[in-house]
Amino acid sequence: MGGDNAPSMVIDGMAIALESVSNLNFHIYGDGHKLSTLLASYPKVMEVTEIHHTEDVVSNDEKPGIALRSGRQSSMRLAINAVGDGIAGGVVSAGNTGALMAMAKFVMKTLPGIDRPAIASYYPTMTGESVMLDLGANIQCDAENLVQFAVMGEVFARYVLHIEQPSIGILNVGTEVLKGNDSVKQAAAILRETHLPIKFHGFVEGDDIGKGTVDVVVTDGFTGNVALKTIEGTAKLFAGALKEELKGSMLGKIGALIAKPAIDAFRNRFDPRRYNGAMFLGLNGICVKSHGGTDSFGFANAILAAHEMVSDGLNDGIKEDFARFNDEHHNFSNIQVDD
Amino acid sequence: MGGDNAPSMVIDGMAIALESVSNLNFHIYGDGHKLSTLLASYPKVMEVTEIHHTEDVVSNDEKPGIALRSGRQSSMRLAINAVGDGIAGGVVSAGNTGALMAMAKFVMKTLPGIDRPAIASYYPTMTGESVMLDLGANIQCDAENLVQFAVMGEVFARYVLHIEQPSIGILNVGTEVLKGNDSVKQAAAILRETHLPIKFHGFVEGDDIGKGTVDVVVTDGFTGNVALKTIEGTAKLFAGALKEELKGSMLGKIGALIAKPAIDAFRNRFDPRRYNGAMFLGLNGICVKSHGGTDSFGFANAILAAHEMVSDGLNDGIKEDFARFNDEHHNFSNIQVDD
Repeated sequence: MGGDNAPSMVIDGMAIALESVSNLNFHIYGDGHKLSTLLASYPKVMEVTEIHHTEDVVSNDEKPGIALRSGRQSSMRLAINAVGDGIAGGVVSAGNTGALMAMAKFVMKTLPGIDRPAIASYYPTMTGESVMLDLGANIQCDAENLVQFAVMGEVFARYVLHIEQPSIGILNVGTEVLKGNDSVKQAAAILRETHLPIKFHGFVEGDDIGKGTVDVVVTDGFTGNVALKTIEGTAKLFAGALKEELKGSMLGKIGALIAKPAIDAFRNRFDPRRYNGAMFLGLNGICVKSHGGTDSFGFANAILAAHEMVSDGLNDGIKEDFARFNDEHHNFSNIQVDD
Repeated sequence: MGGDNAPSMVIDGMAIALESVSNLNFHIYGDGHKLSTLLASYPKVMEVTEIHHTEDVVSNDEKPGIALRSGRQSSMRLAINAVGDGIAGGVVSAGNTGALMAMAKFVMKTLPGIDRPAIASYYPTMTGESVMLDLGANIQCDAENLVQFAVMGEVFARYVLHIEQPSIGILNVGTEVLKGNDSVKQAAAILRETHLPIKFHGFVEGDDIGKGTVDVVVTDGFTGNVALKTIEGTAKLFAGALKEELKGSMLGKIGALIAKPAIDAFRNRFDPRRYNGAMFLGLNGICVKSHGGTDSFGFANAILAAHEMVSDGLNDGIKEDFARFNDEHHNFSNIQVDD
């Protein structure tokens, strides 16, 4: 029931996703009448979908704590419960992010060795695709949190982006060892020393995000959230200005018309719907948050991301790495960074 | 002597700046022989320039503390001294940022009421131009620092960007009052209550930077540095991809050729050289850091920015506002933010 055009956008998105992966099946939670009416247009989807009626929904401005306490019968909570109960492999929602994280954490719990789940997204770069985390779940992070994000991000890049040996960078204000705050310095010191087979690149800067300098960009949720939204804002600014200049003159209009296939290819490369879906990593279950303003194509991608994480066994990979990491980790607990 | 193509880029830049503002005059510090040879090509510039020979330079990888102690005869230090001694109205350098800040702070001191100077830059948005600070001088900032940045940024927007009543926003992970860390919450509480005639908008998010939602974006140096470089990286990613797609097909090439004036206008709008120059605000003197990789056109803009801040009396404006702010500020020292 979450998202600007829910639930029709959700149902349409399920249909698109089912075209890509034919063995999907769905449990959907919300207004049963609305949902079954919408599903009637998609007989194939209906065949693989079970509707669970509930009248309660979590609104977009509801505080996470309130949603957690009073939303026990909400569509969001029941969908999360389905993962907790083993009925579903993963949950996808376009609703309230904070409430989704709070409920998912409460129901699914975190994986062993992980203190705090993180929100991750992947995005296009000059060289391919990279993943960045945390994007807003944790406003303040210590070194341990960042190290855990690094390990989770590395597994995500390996399992979902299919990068054989993903490189990891910590976002900072410079690349020199002594730059930045204590959390990033200490986290880098731990990652430099670890015997896990991970490729730690060191510090990266804001412009390295778009360059694709590393496959995994690790940062605290404050910086990551600002960086991600700054990318979105810059993209909109550029696209808007380009359109304005092209439409502002006859030659611009003619040129744009002739170059339309190239301009379309450019636009398609950065189509935010292709990258829709923020992954909640570190939970004992798969949970993907779709952008609330996306359309059915974008929502389908969020479903497919969840499906990929389930079928690739992402969480088994994370558990495995953390077991190894924690075995050796007592060696690092005393690492100090010179100032 | 600082910058990738110094000193020739600097001398060429002086010539360009002098074409815009004919009553400029220069003191330049560095290798006297090189400088006078270069100046020989510009008789008009030579007339208004005094060369001060020194052999010592601050290298780009020198630590600020070392530069401060051992670079007393460096070209950078002597140029800063010229402002401290009242010989020059402002200093412009394309050299080592950290050393420039450390030396400028030591020589010029901060303005009354300002604990820490900030680095500010202005940039193009959907609606015009905005200024953002701090961009890296202060990795960790408390509420007081952010409030001081807000007041300085507001004066800058008024005096240099000529915005009559600039709006101020604090960069955060959401716009709701209770979002973010303690520093931003407390700073917002102070700015909401102040009787200074400033227009406090509230919190803004990363995508508001490009939108131009506010005229002044206030943030700590860690987040600001990442955001600024993220904009740069995203711009490069987009420009590169657009070029690639247009050059990748015959229709793309033809269309781009026809639309060239429009595409050039688009490129010109975001030409980083037009926005070259990071302003060190809060010092008792004007100091502008040029990008080291800029060309003479970009360096000329940094000179013109310094000239504008001097001739507009920016620092008098900042002093005036701080005198008023500090008068009423004891009222705010006990403001608490509910959690």
